[in-house]
Amino acid sequence: MTAKPICLIIGAGDYIGAAIARRFAKGGFHVVMGRRRGEMFAPLVAEIEAAGGSAQGFSWDARKEETTTEMFAHVEAEIGPIEICIFNVGGNVRFPILDTTERVFRKVWEMCAYAAFLSGREAAKYMVERQKGSIFFTGATASVRGSAGYAAFASGKFALRGLAQSMARELGPKNIHVAHLVIDAGVDTAFVRDRVRQSGKDPDTLPPDTLMNPDSIAEAYWTLHHQTRDGWTHEMDIRPFAETW
Amino acid sequence: MTAKPICLIIGAGDYIGAAIARRFAKGGFHVVMGRRRGEMFAPLVAEIEAAGGSAQGFSWDARKEETTTEMFAHVEAEIGPIEICIFNVGGNVRFPILDTTERVFRKVWEMCAYAAFLSGREAAKYMVERQKGSIFFTGATASVRGSAGYAAFASGKFALRGLAQSMARELGPKNIHVAHLVIDAGVDTAFVRDRVRQSGKDPDTLPPDTLMNPDSIAEAYWTLHHQTRDGWTHEMDIRPFAETW
Amino acid sequence: MTAKPICLIIGAGDYIGAAIARRFAKGGFHVVMGRRRGEMFAPLVAEIEAAGGSAQGFSWDARKEETTTEMFAHVEAEIGPIEICIFNVGGNVRFPILDTTERVFRKVWEMCAYAAFLSGREAAKYMVERQKGSIFFTGATASVRGSAGYAAFASGKFALRGLAQSMARELGPKNIHVAHLVIDAGVDTAFVRDRVRQSGKDPDTLPPDTLMNPDSIAEAYWTLHHQTRDGWTHEMDIRPFAETW
Amino acid sequence: MTAKPICLIIGAGDYIGAAIARRFAKGGFHVVMGRRRGEMFAPLVAEIEAAGGSAQGFSWDARKEETTTEMFAHVEAEIGPIEICIFNVGGNVRFPILDTTERVFRKVWEMCAYAAFLSGREAAKYMVERQKGSIFFTGATASVRGSAGYAAFASGKFALRGLAQSMARELGPKNIHVAHLVIDAGVDTAFVRDRVRQSGKDPDTLPPDTLMNPDSIAEAYWTLHHQTRDGWTHEMDIRPFAETW
Repeated sequence: MTAKPICLIIGAGDYIGAAIARRFAKGGFHVVMGRRRGEMFAPLVAEIEAAGGSAQGFSWDARKEETTTEMFAHVEAEIGPIEICIFNVGGNVRFPILDTTERVFRKVWEMCAYAAFLSGREAAKYMVERQKGSIFFTGATASVRGSAGYAAFASGKFALRGLAQSMARELGPKNIHVAHLVIDAGVDTAFVRDRVRQSGKDPDTLPPDTLMNPDSIAEAYWTLHHQTRDGWTHEMDIRPFAETW
Repeated sequence: MTAKPICLIIGAGDYIGAAIARRFAKGGFHVVMGRRRGEMFAPLVAEIEAAGGSAQGFSWDARKEETTTEMFAHVEAEIGPIEICIFNVGGNVRFPILDTTERVFRKVWEMCAYAAFLSGREAAKYMVERQKGSIFFTGATASVRGSAGYAAFASGKFALRGLAQSMARELGPKNIHVAHLVIDAGVDTAFVRDRVRQSGKDPDTLPPDTLMNPDSIAEAYWTLHHQTRDGWTHEMDIRPFAETW
Repeated sequence: MTAKPICLIIGAGDYIGAAIARRFAKGGFHVVMGRRRGEMFAPLVAEIEAAGGSAQGFSWDARKEETTTEMFAHVEAEIGPIEICIFNVGGNVRFPILDTTERVFRKVWEMCAYAAFLSGREAAKYMVERQKGSIFFTGATASVRGSAGYAAFASGKFALRGLAQSMARELGPKNIHVAHLVIDAGVDTAFVRDRVRQSGKDPDTLPPDTLMNPDSIAEAYWTLHHQTRDGWTHEMDIRPFAETW
Repeated sequence: MTAKPICLIIGAGDYIGAAIARRFAKGGFHVVMGRRRGEMFAPLVAEIEAAGGSAQGFSWDARKEETTTEMFAHVEAEIGPIEICIFNVGGNVRFPILDTTERVFRKVWEMCAYAAFLSGREAAKYMVERQKGSIFFTGATASVRGSAGYAAFASGKFALRGLAQSMARELGPKNIHVAHLVIDAGVDTAFVRDRVRQSGKDPDTLPPDTLMNPDSIAEAYWTLHHQTRDGWTHEMDIRPFAETW
């Protein structure tokens, strides 16, 4: 068991999730991370430890109830009480409605909303007992706007937002801070740079700060978690200064 | 094959769906209806036929892709081209988040959003080819507000709204009218009267028009379908005059 | 005094307002209209009368409280009880924030919201006593989205929406139907055709139904007014099928 | 001229504005404040100075264009370049629509939106030239919900939100951060405690953190101003953990 507070990140990939991990580790948290292929955490854990922090990662299919229930139980029993749980699983796909298979529609929902429900409920189970904790969800433009060609993704992200809003209203009075962050722009990732390239621009010559640095999102989560409970935020948007919206 | 235009209603229960069926039958449509237990349509079909209209019902589990694909193919091949498809499957349940099983969360989503996707996509498949048709979805208060105790239902209804919004933006330019109706109040059903009773009031002595008549909702769908395409509505709310919202 | 029900239209210009006037006259209403220069109503009144309807127009500066109070009193005392009051004053201007004078900002608000308040309150005064009536407001895209370059217009239209929403919640239980229509596209007017031309397109060769026919908006108002009170709509959007939104 | 960055607060009353002043003074800003009766700033300025900070206050009727233009010019010429301008003028009144005088409706708008426009535009004038600065506006529940009995206040606060949203979209790409904070609860003030008393409760025995501490709001403004420009927030809500919303 660690004496540090625990920050659990479900869906900690190479960008936003990794940035959140670095931020909370730097702030004195022991960071526990889950993703499908847990072995990919090795370099990030090494980096965090080299910087004087502590972290560990697990292989964790967040779309499986049994896995999720067991992992929460394991973290709580063997590592420490979870102070903050951040759900950051993605699922951004683009398909015309006629090309959207039932498999895609279901899988995107499982990633965006069903896994969020499983993790959110398990986190709540432990936090309600302690009357203490934060549960944060990563949203997107598609959480508030269903654009053409994004039926599956918008449906999944809307579902996540409805879940988050309901949980916030139910759990707030129990001293659990539930928040939903609307990331309304491209984060600076290989995936987004590819898209920029496909649109005929050179991502390396974009004006500075035109793409979003994952560290900025991580900072937002850090800040929200440290709000005093007389002034909690449930939802905030975040985008680069030059973004058209 | 019928010479009448076809109105297909998925999730035609005893109240809203039945009222929509009566309205479109009265307006000259041949009404095709689906619900889990198709034998329950008998009295409604008889009533519609007695009034000079025509209708037929099928056993149809809208949460099954194969069933849905086959039923659409059957209606299009054997009955006639679908002019309007109305998705009206419910799913209203109330559970604290900690008491929400994964089965409930998944099932509510399947009813609210997954089945809506299957039916909406199949309807679009035939309508896009003809460049003509309407696809309407029944929403609820929970489509725009995640209240405490409704995590599963709000998540499912938000998911439906994201789907509808994306489909409207994609299919509008193809001359398919996609609309989402927010039913923001109790419809006058046995279920709602029971709730009123549980809250200590007598539903029989409520002031007139305090509960919503399903016919009023049916009229709204009728009207939306007859909008000219230079002025389509994507979303409208509907509630009794005395409702607090 | 007329035996017909009265439809009062404040801000009845050449397009939307005129179309509403024609629609309600055709439906058996006596239409009373107000605009700054009342003499401009002559051709519309002649047209309505030639079609067998009845209408009359007044010079009416809707931004003046005394005028508005007196006109409502006059209509109620000399013409008949107002069954529906439609507020349709415009105010669409585009200015960068630094070029927005205080005079423009104030005047746009006076047209969009202050005049709406004056007319809405006077209408409510008579309708609340009778426990009957409709008060409808014409909104725009800018009612729900503050775009760059539209600070004055968006602020004015948001103000109108806040007013309409508050009035709907207060007056609904008194049997007054308050509704707000979001016209989310260009209506087919000389003004819009000029804009299309400025963007390098020929408005005469646009695909049919790409611009909105004011009659479609008029029909929406007609429909809303005839909703039964167990199923009132407070807000609906309306736009051409091919519109990007 | 001061070497410190300038934080200008328009509508710096005894609670939120004062808390913001303390926060930015503590953080190294020279705080300039305006309110109708500038002599009331004396104790706050003394308190800030005693704590090692610096601040000064002016009599400033924010609803007067000439005053506002002159005051901005004075601050920029004689004190220093404004780095952040916070508009915090209130205007919360409750009146049934029929009891809302034109004077009240106009005055509430002037406080909520017109004064915000004047200050926002003047701030933008200087900031756009420097391509740098923040302009923040204080919103309320009434900014996003028009409740019964709040026609004037909701209309004014909606107007402010439309203004803020349009300015954010226009000025963001010019490196000006425009944000709108939705304070969705009672702040702990004498006014709110009176309301609590009127509702039959004793404000002194409310559970801790049930009312909002102005310091929490001040912290939110501080945080927003320090966001890096690749991840700016335009809107966030803030309310106590136990608030019903």
